[in-house]
Amino acid sequence: MKLATLNDGTRDGELIVVSRDLKRAVSAKPRVATLQRALETWTTSEALLRELADAIETGSCPEVFTVDTAKLAAPLPRAAQWLDGSAFHSHGDLMEKVFGLDPPADKHTIPLMYQGGSDDLLGANADVPVPSEALGIDFEAEIGVVVDDVPMGVPAARALDHVKLVVLINDVSLRALAGREMKTGFGWIQAKPSSSFAPVAVTPDELGVAWRGGRVHLPVHVHWNGQWFGSPNAGAMGFGFDRLIEHAARTRRLRAGTIIGSGTVSNSNFREIGSACIAERRGIELVDHGEPTTNFMKFGDRVRIEVNDEGGRSIFGAIDQRMVEAPAP
Amino acid sequence: MKLATLNDGTRDGELIVVSRDLKRAVSAKPRVATLQRALETWTTSEALLRELADAIETGSCPEVFTVDTAKLAAPLPRAAQWLDGSAFHSHGDLMEKVFGLDPPADKHTIPLMYQGGSDDLLGANADVPVPSEALGIDFEAEIGVVVDDVPMGVPAARALDHVKLVVLINDVSLRALAGREMKTGFGWIQAKPSSSFAPVAVTPDELGVAWRGGRVHLPVHVHWNGQWFGSPNAGAMGFGFDRLIEHAARTRRLRAGTIIGSGTVSNSNFREIGSACIAERRGIELVDHGEPTTNFMKFGDRVRIEVNDEGGRSIFGAIDQRMVEAPAP
Repeated sequence: MKLATLNDGTRDGELIVVSRDLKRAVSAKPRVATLQRALETWTTSEALLRELADAIETGSCPEVFTVDTAKLAAPLPRAAQWLDGSAFHSHGDLMEKVFGLDPPADKHTIPLMYQGGSDDLLGANADVPVPSEALGIDFEAEIGVVVDDVPMGVPAARALDHVKLVVLINDVSLRALAGREMKTGFGWIQAKPSSSFAPVAVTPDELGVAWRGGRVHLPVHVHWNGQWFGSPNAGAMGFGFDRLIEHAARTRRLRAGTIIGSGTVSNSNFREIGSACIAERRGIELVDHGEPTTNFMKFGDRVRIEVNDEGGRSIFGAIDQRMVEAPAP
Repeated sequence: MKLATLNDGTRDGELIVVSRDLKRAVSAKPRVATLQRALETWTTSEALLRELADAIETGSCPEVFTVDTAKLAAPLPRAAQWLDGSAFHSHGDLMEKVFGLDPPADKHTIPLMYQGGSDDLLGANADVPVPSEALGIDFEAEIGVVVDDVPMGVPAARALDHVKLVVLINDVSLRALAGREMKTGFGWIQAKPSSSFAPVAVTPDELGVAWRGGRVHLPVHVHWNGQWFGSPNAGAMGFGFDRLIEHAARTRRLRAGTIIGSGTVSNSNFREIGSACIAERRGIELVDHGEPTTNFMKFGDRVRIEVNDEGGRSIFGAIDQRMVEAPAP
């Protein structure tokens, strides 16, 4: 089942069920008004929504309309919370080397995770406003999962039962601000503007065998201004989403609609397979040639992020968006 | 005007307007169903709510009921976001000394701030579940402000226009987990369980002359198991809420319902005036006597946090809650 959110002028938007080929949709509003509400009531809403999804595929739903996924909001325009891991060891190891960071001794046993803002999540084709090009504008292509209510202390072995949806994310980062904020130990505020989401959230069964071990075993394709940048496989997470959820819920319950991110997708053969963020490519350049030669994004630059199934069909729809100068307040 | 939220079984609760003396209330539901909704529509909802507030005080409101503030939910049981500063320099300076932290060179010009979870905020008398006493359970008494929609890049000079409500907070912290998370640079996840809120949120005018310079110039009284622990004055913030909002909104807009916290209230004469968290008292003991002698909280321990006006009347109602062992998941 594929779910998305129409931008209807409200803060949570209107829930729609989208066809597998991303071309048609039907409003879920008469049954479940918003995706947030669906997640809060999943034990009853799932069946209602799956009926609509089946009706679209069999052509038995008269209220179907043609959908332009480029105009959709984020599946959750505001979410209960946004917790982002850094679960790909090849990325973490490289960043430690580049920045001379002291690696935590337990880095392969305890996940890294930060809490980001979730009050203002952007749609797949929304411009990303940034105050200045000098802030080191970077994209980060990631996979995320959306959970229902998760009890405090849930063990990894039961955590995946709470994964209701899988999403594709651009976790835009401002690298010029990130180092100073990390040094404070308080984590990132200014270095992390609003994240953006591919138009469609999918139930794990839509991924077929690609969803296993709490990971999405598919390449994430990243293009920057139309040029191929990387296709790392998201299955290479050092910690699966089961471990990330367990980590997040150790001392608090997570409420329905919480989004947990994988962190920038990265593979150890990043020199061949490419990267999902500019910082990683710059790190490789620094290690290989003594200095980074790739610059960060400029205003007007576009990034496109997409995941296809084995038949080459887009699963989530594409993130395809520009970085722009923020208007004066 | 004083606003609060009845626990009606829904996730956002039911908005009520509370009398100045915290004894009576009237439902705002027919006009504005939830506090979140009120903040999103403040330009129209404020007048409607103030009519009710006036009617309670003049006795002209027939639907008034007696309210037990101990049974109320947090004013925002889930909030758009929760951003917590560390704006009291006397606290930060002591913690640096105690933990041998390298103080940021710009610590008196750039505020410190972390992003906490806001999906599950607790009421003033709710038990706080924690998995283990060994985690170093601490309270942190704080003042917070709740804003309406704040544009990206808002300057400090215009930031206070967005402050719609002032709240009183217990930012429970697990000190045994905090150091490791700080060292990662990613900020706190496990070290920060759900925060709790005094029952009533107040508009700044309720504070009279105590609200000036983006600060609440009143002592915050903290008792631990019935023993006085501290009464530091919240007016001593090194950065006012104007600067904290400006900092938070530098690279993203803040959506209505965002809560910005002051960090643990602290005064430089903490040896006399006491502290608003145990970590600070332990820091003083370490500096003065070579080792901390005060332990962290045990299960069953209570903390009470309250702010009174100049006439000795409780402004926000009291936070008064126990730490308890979290049930098995």
